[in-house]
Amino acid sequence: MSSSKSLRAGIVGFRGYSGNELIHILHRHRFVTGVPLEHRSDSSSASPLSGQTVKDQDLAVVFLATPPEASMELTADFLAAGAKVVDLSGAFRLRTPENYARWYKEPHTAAALLAEAAYGLPEFYRNTIQNARLVSNPGCYPTAANLAIRPLINAGAVNLQAGIICDAKSGVSGAGRKPSMKTSFCEVTENFSAYSLLDHRHVPEVLQNSNLEESQFSFSAQLIPIDRGILETIYFRTPTLDFNTDRIYQIYQDAYANERFVRIHSPGKVPDLHSVRRTNYCDIGFSQQPDGRTVVVSAIDNLVKGAAGQAVQNMNLILGFPEVEGL
Amino acid sequence: MSSSKSLRAGIVGFRGYSGNELIHILHRHRFVTGVPLEHRSDSSSASPLSGQTVKDQDLAVVFLATPPEASMELTADFLAAGAKVVDLSGAFRLRTPENYARWYKEPHTAAALLAEAAYGLPEFYRNTIQNARLVSNPGCYPTAANLAIRPLINAGAVNLQAGIICDAKSGVSGAGRKPSMKTSFCEVTENFSAYSLLDHRHVPEVLQNSNLEESQFSFSAQLIPIDRGILETIYFRTPTLDFNTDRIYQIYQDAYANERFVRIHSPGKVPDLHSVRRTNYCDIGFSQQPDGRTVVVSAIDNLVKGAAGQAVQNMNLILGFPEVEGL
Amino acid sequence: MSSSKSLRAGIVGFRGYSGNELIHILHRHRFVTGVPLEHRSDSSSASPLSGQTVKDQDLAVVFLATPPEASMELTADFLAAGAKVVDLSGAFRLRTPENYARWYKEPHTAAALLAEAAYGLPEFYRNTIQNARLVSNPGCYPTAANLAIRPLINAGAVNLQAGIICDAKSGVSGAGRKPSMKTSFCEVTENFSAYSLLDHRHVPEVLQNSNLEESQFSFSAQLIPIDRGILETIYFRTPTLDFNTDRIYQIYQDAYANERFVRIHSPGKVPDLHSVRRTNYCDIGFSQQPDGRTVVVSAIDNLVKGAAGQAVQNMNLILGFPEVEGL
Amino acid sequence: MSSSKSLRAGIVGFRGYSGNELIHILHRHRFVTGVPLEHRSDSSSASPLSGQTVKDQDLAVVFLATPPEASMELTADFLAAGAKVVDLSGAFRLRTPENYARWYKEPHTAAALLAEAAYGLPEFYRNTIQNARLVSNPGCYPTAANLAIRPLINAGAVNLQAGIICDAKSGVSGAGRKPSMKTSFCEVTENFSAYSLLDHRHVPEVLQNSNLEESQFSFSAQLIPIDRGILETIYFRTPTLDFNTDRIYQIYQDAYANERFVRIHSPGKVPDLHSVRRTNYCDIGFSQQPDGRTVVVSAIDNLVKGAAGQAVQNMNLILGFPEVEGL
Repeated sequence: MSSSKSLRAGIVGFRGYSGNELIHILHRHRFVTGVPLEHRSDSSSASPLSGQTVKDQDLAVVFLATPPEASMELTADFLAAGAKVVDLSGAFRLRTPENYARWYKEPHTAAALLAEAAYGLPEFYRNTIQNARLVSNPGCYPTAANLAIRPLINAGAVNLQAGIICDAKSGVSGAGRKPSMKTSFCEVTENFSAYSLLDHRHVPEVLQNSNLEESQFSFSAQLIPIDRGILETIYFRTPTLDFNTDRIYQIYQDAYANERFVRIHSPGKVPDLHSVRRTNYCDIGFSQQPDGRTVVVSAIDNLVKGAAGQAVQNMNLILGFPEVEGL
Repeated sequence: MSSSKSLRAGIVGFRGYSGNELIHILHRHRFVTGVPLEHRSDSSSASPLSGQTVKDQDLAVVFLATPPEASMELTADFLAAGAKVVDLSGAFRLRTPENYARWYKEPHTAAALLAEAAYGLPEFYRNTIQNARLVSNPGCYPTAANLAIRPLINAGAVNLQAGIICDAKSGVSGAGRKPSMKTSFCEVTENFSAYSLLDHRHVPEVLQNSNLEESQFSFSAQLIPIDRGILETIYFRTPTLDFNTDRIYQIYQDAYANERFVRIHSPGKVPDLHSVRRTNYCDIGFSQQPDGRTVVVSAIDNLVKGAAGQAVQNMNLILGFPEVEGL
Repeated sequence: MSSSKSLRAGIVGFRGYSGNELIHILHRHRFVTGVPLEHRSDSSSASPLSGQTVKDQDLAVVFLATPPEASMELTADFLAAGAKVVDLSGAFRLRTPENYARWYKEPHTAAALLAEAAYGLPEFYRNTIQNARLVSNPGCYPTAANLAIRPLINAGAVNLQAGIICDAKSGVSGAGRKPSMKTSFCEVTENFSAYSLLDHRHVPEVLQNSNLEESQFSFSAQLIPIDRGILETIYFRTPTLDFNTDRIYQIYQDAYANERFVRIHSPGKVPDLHSVRRTNYCDIGFSQQPDGRTVVVSAIDNLVKGAAGQAVQNMNLILGFPEVEGL
Repeated sequence: MSSSKSLRAGIVGFRGYSGNELIHILHRHRFVTGVPLEHRSDSSSASPLSGQTVKDQDLAVVFLATPPEASMELTADFLAAGAKVVDLSGAFRLRTPENYARWYKEPHTAAALLAEAAYGLPEFYRNTIQNARLVSNPGCYPTAANLAIRPLINAGAVNLQAGIICDAKSGVSGAGRKPSMKTSFCEVTENFSAYSLLDHRHVPEVLQNSNLEESQFSFSAQLIPIDRGILETIYFRTPTLDFNTDRIYQIYQDAYANERFVRIHSPGKVPDLHSVRRTNYCDIGFSQQPDGRTVVVSAIDNLVKGAAGQAVQNMNLILGFPEVEGL
């Protein structure tokens, strides 16, 4: 496959931080060319996007770096016109319209597509993604959380009655590019603030993919005065002292030995945000006390593994390219 | 008492961030004048400090903004010479030399003074402080933590079997003024890092003053790329659903109704670091889910309520000045 | 004069950064109480401000921390109702409506007041200010520039043919509080940008008060990723080698020996922004080469000496309080 | 040429910011592999580097990201052993040992090599570099300055009697990785400071390569609270009004039409640091007043075009690879 035969990937919402990162990543991709698509929410003069756009532009895949309302509006047409869709919004991440309505505070307007949407966390759902037309790219916080906790839960290493605490921190780009008081420089610099305590809309994505009940998972989101990066500090207790440091480490090794984008630190070492900045890695480390109390630190770049990078990883899977291409 | 009759307060370690803040605060104090005292660790040419310094300089009180080794070395002489001492180090915070040796990794060299050291958290120990010669000023992290959790624990509002998680974040001045790779600009900016997971030396101060067992309190410290401020996100479960939002709020109201330096946010609202920057306030807010999961946010300025401000508050108590003077 | 007889000072535009700083400063003022006045641009439900407001609220003075259009609209009424006015906008800083129209790109709608407006730089115009009803508070950049260069120009120390270069840098609060892409965190952090090259609207304030022709003064404004502070690096050549370091230093000493808010660094030393942060000082230092090339660094806090602090200094002058009160 | 036949490039000083950036860039290079070389200043246990190292390690080229003393000590041996040398220090940038001694305050200990050292600014000296054994990689500030002013000076567009003012600002990585008070987070954040007024050691590099007398070029260096990036604001007057905006623009176009790493903004537009962050570009823009006063803004990433990127660009030239490879 040569670059003279590049496939074309449309990008709706290319002016936002995730969309811009997509353009940046695809610029390095040997087999796919990014095509910015002007959406009417970007400009009053743009004509509406539709299935015809896919045909006119000869698009193999479309990335939707849009709010969920726009994704629900556009996806069916793009699919019908023969394109694959990787949606970066929350529109297709939850499995039922009821659950969507509860957490997103609005009705789901494309519920017929929920059943076929593959949840785009390749480390867990690679086979499903490869065969999907529609991939729902995970939220930034759930990516870091699920990669850190699901192997432990599956292995029975977590005392679920005591529950899991996930204290999450994000750089400001996670709030999007639209100017607001909350993201203005003078409000953010030399500050640190919590903005979603126990009821963030990303919570159900973690419950659903790590098999947790709501009462077993406490999550808060906070704003760091930096532009990009997510670090989650995750606390739990082991059910027995058998789940010691060696065993926890082995669980992670077994889960991710063949994964290119998950790196496990040696016991007692944890990543910081510089470790993952501008990369598609999720870095995970942990430390444990002899009484079984354990803390895991999981770090990603919210715009890469937490958005555009993972979206390209998913695109590589559905189009049959090497999973690391461009990343 | 007029300013022409100011008392004199020595400051050892005045070049560090806490010592510098002490000078700054005392500059505004109507009744006390700060006197920087050159310690030999500051300068090879300085003569050693001793009880004679107290007499020569006519000091009513001495602040020790020093490492614990220096505090252990100097305190007895200063007390013997008739000065009160407010020690900002960890030297006299724990009750036994064994506990000190465990957490500070060195033997205690002034154990005879431990019994008389008052723990300088005025909101809990005001009467003891007023009558003390030696006040041990609390650590920055324990100040924010104890003020947030002790009233709840005393009221039985915390399920101690599930335990308390305290995820703490601090500005860089908390690491002291001595240059190091860890606090150099390029390593800190656009970063966020955890530096003490479950075994920070401030932990026993919380256990001791909030009546907790070690296994009941999980604490991690992290570095925010800002100069000052501590924010702690504290998670727990209530033992029964009776401890609902109204009741938690009432517990805080009862505990701090008469306190000038603790402010309780209305339920569902939490402070950020701008709320407390350059003030002696500890701001506390919380949010609760119907199933009893509760998150408390406690914020202070680590150099003020977490160090120099609280030290002056303590000085005001032992010298009989209005507690808010200078603050 | 006791605090029980405080005078009342209205503050229009109290939600902006300068207005908020005014509230903060007046909170410490022993003789004046700040009264926030809701303006219709702040809230659609507010009734219009007028001379009646002055009477209803018993205001001795009104601060206008508003855009120039609002200042031009409100000032005459407030004056007519008997209040003094300190205007922080650019409305009354230039001497002619033509000059205003040129630099502010809109007609002046209160030109009758220009003649009586005192330019509120106390170090140069103290007597005039004391007798004024209307004080036009200087721009932030011109405050730092005029204090640095006017004494030198008056003394003949500057080769005006070679001209003066003023390379100015400001923290982000100088751009106001309204959210915009330009001041959003992710655009500012880890960045540095020039936003007005040779044609900033503050230029004529410098020309007018330092007796310069336009071609003699080159000024550019740039954005530092910090919240507050202005630092100007000013380059010129001396007309002869007689204006050596000692003489330049003497000129500054003579100009500011009795000024409380201007501090001259010893030759070769220059201030940084930490020197003046949250103070009403203008700090000035300089360095010179043997061939007469000279660089001056002038630093202020843009919200204090560059706005609210200087406004209170002016208020103190017109109301007869000690000039430093509250500052 | 296949990657299985990669040439090997030694990197001395690989732990510093420039050395680390070299490793990062060479990681992407198709034809050259970076080889970190432990120098005795890095580790007491390292054996001394010498010509034998070149042979043992089969090095085609060695990068010296070292202080000038180490570069003067090591270069001759490496050259004698057959390696090319790209030196990132100031050791070989000035043409005479006397000039070096004046600006670097120490004697030159390898003066015999000065004559053959090529100054590694490819946009001006490409042919010389291609034939050199030893390339002296330019200083970060002179790179941005010379690229901005030399074409103008050569074209006669600058009034040299009035002189050129270059107000330079740099991110903190420019000060190196060794911890110091000057670069510690709390001293830098929310600050802006000048640290070298009119006498920076990079000045003679500009004089020498842009044919200026010392009195014609005034340069100051300042510290921005960001990690990387240099922005220089450069002021001059044209000798006649013939050198208007169109003509200045044409001069730049003519100079850089075929250069891959210099981008000229359209008249009136200037770059910021985000424009060049993590790239090897030098971006240049300018704005002019009708009276001939002109301001140029030149921006680079100090670790890329200002150090490691340009070093690799030079390496590509001397080894015969495409100039953009790896960049």
